[in-house]
Amino acid sequence: MTDLSAALRRVLDGRWAAVREEIRTEFGPEQFAPPPPGTSMEEYRDRVAKQVQLIADSGHPARGFPVSMGGNGDLGGSVTAFEMLGHADLSAMVKAGVHWGLFGGAVANLGTERHHAAYIPRIIDGSLPGCFAMTETGHGSDVQSLGTTATYDRATDELVVHTPSAGARKDYIGNAARDGRMAAVFAQLVTDGTSHGVHCVLVPIRREDGSPLPGVTIGDCGAKEGLAGVDNGRLTFDHVRVPRTNLLNRYGDIAEDGTYSSPIENPTRRFFTMLGTLVRGRISVAGAAGAATRTALTLAVTYAGHRRQFAPPGGSDEVLLLDYRVHQRKLLPALAKTYALQLAQNELVSLMHDVQGAEGDADEHAQRELEARAAGIKAVATDHATVTIQTCREACGGAGYMAVNRLPMLKADTDVFTTFEGDNTVLLQLVAKGLLTDYAGAFGDLDTLGMVRFGARQFAGAVIERTAARLLVRRLVDAAPGRDSEKGPLDRGWQLELFEDREEHLLETLAMRLRKASGPDADPFAVFNDAQDHVVQTARAHVDRLVLEAFVAGVAACEDIAARKVLGQVCDLYALSTIEAERGWYLEHGRITPARSKQVTAAVNGLCAALRPHAQELVDAFGIPESWLGTELLEPPA
Amino acid sequence: MTDLSAALRRVLDGRWAAVREEIRTEFGPEQFAPPPPGTSMEEYRDRVAKQVQLIADSGHPARGFPVSMGGNGDLGGSVTAFEMLGHADLSAMVKAGVHWGLFGGAVANLGTERHHAAYIPRIIDGSLPGCFAMTETGHGSDVQSLGTTATYDRATDELVVHTPSAGARKDYIGNAARDGRMAAVFAQLVTDGTSHGVHCVLVPIRREDGSPLPGVTIGDCGAKEGLAGVDNGRLTFDHVRVPRTNLLNRYGDIAEDGTYSSPIENPTRRFFTMLGTLVRGRISVAGAAGAATRTALTLAVTYAGHRRQFAPPGGSDEVLLLDYRVHQRKLLPALAKTYALQLAQNELVSLMHDVQGAEGDADEHAQRELEARAAGIKAVATDHATVTIQTCREACGGAGYMAVNRLPMLKADTDVFTTFEGDNTVLLQLVAKGLLTDYAGAFGDLDTLGMVRFGARQFAGAVIERTAARLLVRRLVDAAPGRDSEKGPLDRGWQLELFEDREEHLLETLAMRLRKASGPDADPFAVFNDAQDHVVQTARAHVDRLVLEAFVAGVAACEDIAARKVLGQVCDLYALSTIEAERGWYLEHGRITPARSKQVTAAVNGLCAALRPHAQELVDAFGIPESWLGTELLEPPA
Repeated sequence: MTDLSAALRRVLDGRWAAVREEIRTEFGPEQFAPPPPGTSMEEYRDRVAKQVQLIADSGHPARGFPVSMGGNGDLGGSVTAFEMLGHADLSAMVKAGVHWGLFGGAVANLGTERHHAAYIPRIIDGSLPGCFAMTETGHGSDVQSLGTTATYDRATDELVVHTPSAGARKDYIGNAARDGRMAAVFAQLVTDGTSHGVHCVLVPIRREDGSPLPGVTIGDCGAKEGLAGVDNGRLTFDHVRVPRTNLLNRYGDIAEDGTYSSPIENPTRRFFTMLGTLVRGRISVAGAAGAATRTALTLAVTYAGHRRQFAPPGGSDEVLLLDYRVHQRKLLPALAKTYALQLAQNELVSLMHDVQGAEGDADEHAQRELEARAAGIKAVATDHATVTIQTCREACGGAGYMAVNRLPMLKADTDVFTTFEGDNTVLLQLVAKGLLTDYAGAFGDLDTLGMVRFGARQFAGAVIERTAARLLVRRLVDAAPGRDSEKGPLDRGWQLELFEDREEHLLETLAMRLRKASGPDADPFAVFNDAQDHVVQTARAHVDRLVLEAFVAGVAACEDIAARKVLGQVCDLYALSTIEAERGWYLEHGRITPARSKQVTAAVNGLCAALRPHAQELVDAFGIPESWLGTELLEPPA
Repeated sequence: MTDLSAALRRVLDGRWAAVREEIRTEFGPEQFAPPPPGTSMEEYRDRVAKQVQLIADSGHPARGFPVSMGGNGDLGGSVTAFEMLGHADLSAMVKAGVHWGLFGGAVANLGTERHHAAYIPRIIDGSLPGCFAMTETGHGSDVQSLGTTATYDRATDELVVHTPSAGARKDYIGNAARDGRMAAVFAQLVTDGTSHGVHCVLVPIRREDGSPLPGVTIGDCGAKEGLAGVDNGRLTFDHVRVPRTNLLNRYGDIAEDGTYSSPIENPTRRFFTMLGTLVRGRISVAGAAGAATRTALTLAVTYAGHRRQFAPPGGSDEVLLLDYRVHQRKLLPALAKTYALQLAQNELVSLMHDVQGAEGDADEHAQRELEARAAGIKAVATDHATVTIQTCREACGGAGYMAVNRLPMLKADTDVFTTFEGDNTVLLQLVAKGLLTDYAGAFGDLDTLGMVRFGARQFAGAVIERTAARLLVRRLVDAAPGRDSEKGPLDRGWQLELFEDREEHLLETLAMRLRKASGPDADPFAVFNDAQDHVVQTARAHVDRLVLEAFVAGVAACEDIAARKVLGQVCDLYALSTIEAERGWYLEHGRITPARSKQVTAAVNGLCAALRPHAQELVDAFGIPESWLGTELLEPPA
């Protein structure tokens, strides 16, 4: 590894660099590398189940739980460790995430002391494999409309968990088809004929011997596009009885006398507060998407650095793929955005650690900010993974299509990331609605606020985030030249201003459009629906700005002078390729002139050429153990 | 099926409607539907081998060969029949395509009477399973640089076929790992120490019992991302001897006295003439990509027409996915482009039938035009398939990730289409170079011509195509209002003019840039490389125009008034969503004003709303037998 790679790695590794290093060295390829192609689904499930037990034995999962529950209270380290596992095998990462992150997280965050004492130790040591049974066949995005019921039976002091229709069947539930023993089941809680909305109840689903418990029907989702090592299944409950105390009762409880109570009066607010505590899953998916993207880029860049095709006129040496401008254009802007997203992800994990890691209730405003940022980064990072891994496959031609070369598996495993743990389109709308709430609140704009309430339903408070780099950003923007001045597109302040300006203008005009929905004759759905692409665009612009600011902070924090220079160029490439992709908008709105727009394209080409000599070092900086990468793409044929 | 669907189907089915109908009814799902998820690679290969024999028994393959060789001489019908098979199972389609299209096509087009008499009957009836051994581990795109040699040994009157290095191993060869008995091997032909460039030699590779012949080492590529029913393999030759007469000698022959001769003096021109006769494979891949795209859209649109999520404010009925604007935006412009591409594909197949279907040598100019159009449509259609099938998967959420619901398999099977039968990036450069040759020729621009020769090497003649709709297009453009007039973006002439204008401007400015490469101090590779993204953009603009013109011709030919109106709206949506995607360019070059650009976006939204009520009819018009579609996506849970 060169000095440059080492210095860049320090920047990318961030606050939990030590955890990353532990995972790189502790988790050997013989246990954790992806299985050989042709491994059957049953063999793969078995392999992954064993990996999960190895992870349990390593002690790492304790990081994810507070000291008061027997953990280490190192949330950030826990999420970082899972992210690193994503470089090895995504099935293992997802199955571990389902058990410790989703199931364990539900018990820890929605349960109270009685649940913590009874279950957390067995969750940490892996002896009580759990499921997170939220999604149903009929409802995924709209969790508030789930059909499963948990009805209190005063006569026996039990909750009766029931699946009332085919659409209410729990579906795609990880760990359910084979290994899970207990499920955290989300259901409409009913006492005395009154529904209190969705709550979470612990339901044992299998005996020790693995057979389903009475009333529980377990189906197997069977073959999926990817993640073949994860046993996704279906759960149907036929009046299954569990003790009243199995209700995870932190935000809503049934007393011994059968009365329901909650510290949060408003049922919708209660629901979203409960959901908000589970934000870790979304953050982990964003992290895994980043890991997979980095693996794919490492393979494709390394391949393009030795693969030759076509000799130039008059020359006899064939040209390296990576020396072709169109090949650089495929890989290097994607690499720049991958750097940007890793730095943004590091900031997000750090925010989560500080907000949720403390004992007791998190600050509500900070919690809302965390949720909005997690939703936005998850959507953008997983979209980026899908597009980039596809590009990397194509950049390796026929070799990229062979299972032995990993890219097919990376594609198939990560593909579901864009729609699970929140469909990206839905998440971006949540982000935009959060921004609107904040905007309308700041301007006392009740018409817009009324509109925003529809469908948003998630973010109670303000979410316009100011990143760690805020002061630096302000200084750079204030020093920026006027529009299209002679300083050119490489001026960081100019880039930042364009990102900010786009977000603000989109948000303001969106608020104006939605205000029309409040008139006496307005059809609010029609107004909202007509603006829906504007809504999604606004959220993307917001996330783009957050990500650029995280990158700017990362460059500023880099102490190595040579590395800072290269990192600055990578940051330019991220900023300018984003502006180039959005130049239609910037030109439409008079933010750049046609001449400047062409300069941006020229600058992107220039940056591709400038970074080409560092391409290998830039991927080496990801620090993916070679034993996890090992494919035929890394070396030319002998 | 509604009257509208039926009328639209007549337009889409085109000249070989009767063949499409035969395939729809003759190829039953029990034999040709995709295999159940979880089918092992070995079972799947076996299943597909049997399907290929059933296809042979059906008699359809005879269409693809001239009457003089014992075929039916219905090339267009043959390619259309393969395209329809693409709706059922892409592994079967590809394996059949390798045997009849590539192997059979090589024998028919590169061989002479002695080969036709000896092999074509056994190729037609499937009793001589063949491979097309062109690609090597070290060379795919640059076929002229293949390493395999075929050296004439005067002493025994034999050709010695040899693999001189690891990079010269034949790789990814369909039908090689399990079933192939003979391979059409592309190799550098050497007589008396002189190389004559790449030629094709027939080499038996297996005995009747399936064991490899002496000197032939056969490897198995094993698991791939998709097309698991196709047995791709590797061939290595250790001084394998075949009779001199196994040389496919239409374009280059060795006489009994060992002297080499060719009707085409220039070796490069000879090489590209040989390659050009094999254009059918590329056209078939474009067709298969279209079939897979239509299957995916049929599933996703049908699902979105019954799947509900979230109730609107004040309402209790949840909203259908297809009523959301962002969902329409995902599916309907993609559907419009799919219509456009099917009409362009039909024109391409028709052109191929007329150019190559006649006995004797094809007209050289028409042949070059066919090759250029095939390259361009193949690149654009397969890119569209990759993007659209991905979108359809995401539009079906978790359900779309389940193997039982077909979308994962459609994704995996079609993914290689963008890089096999010509890498799309390379193909688009060939198209652009063809355009440049034509442009420079027309203007006597020798500097540019000299530049173009580098790397292009494929198209000897002019390729700027004028489609069937030319006269109509001229009339519409001439009647078009001036730029940004009051007629608005729905004016067809205005749309056509924008497409034309973009192509012409990109081509003119590209020629100017490349002229710089001819100066005494110029580095031609550097100049070319710097313009490479411009090159690719020019080709895309060219194909976009061809495709729009094919759509315009299709609308004009539709006799049903109601269907013509809807088809016109679909054409508008294709044209305007393309202009919207390229609005950065149009604004940069002053072709549209910012106000008009916003109108285009508004018109795309308006067309999505207008076509929403017809969405199901638009996919029903594809006429995919329900028995091939059968998945859980077609009906809501009971």
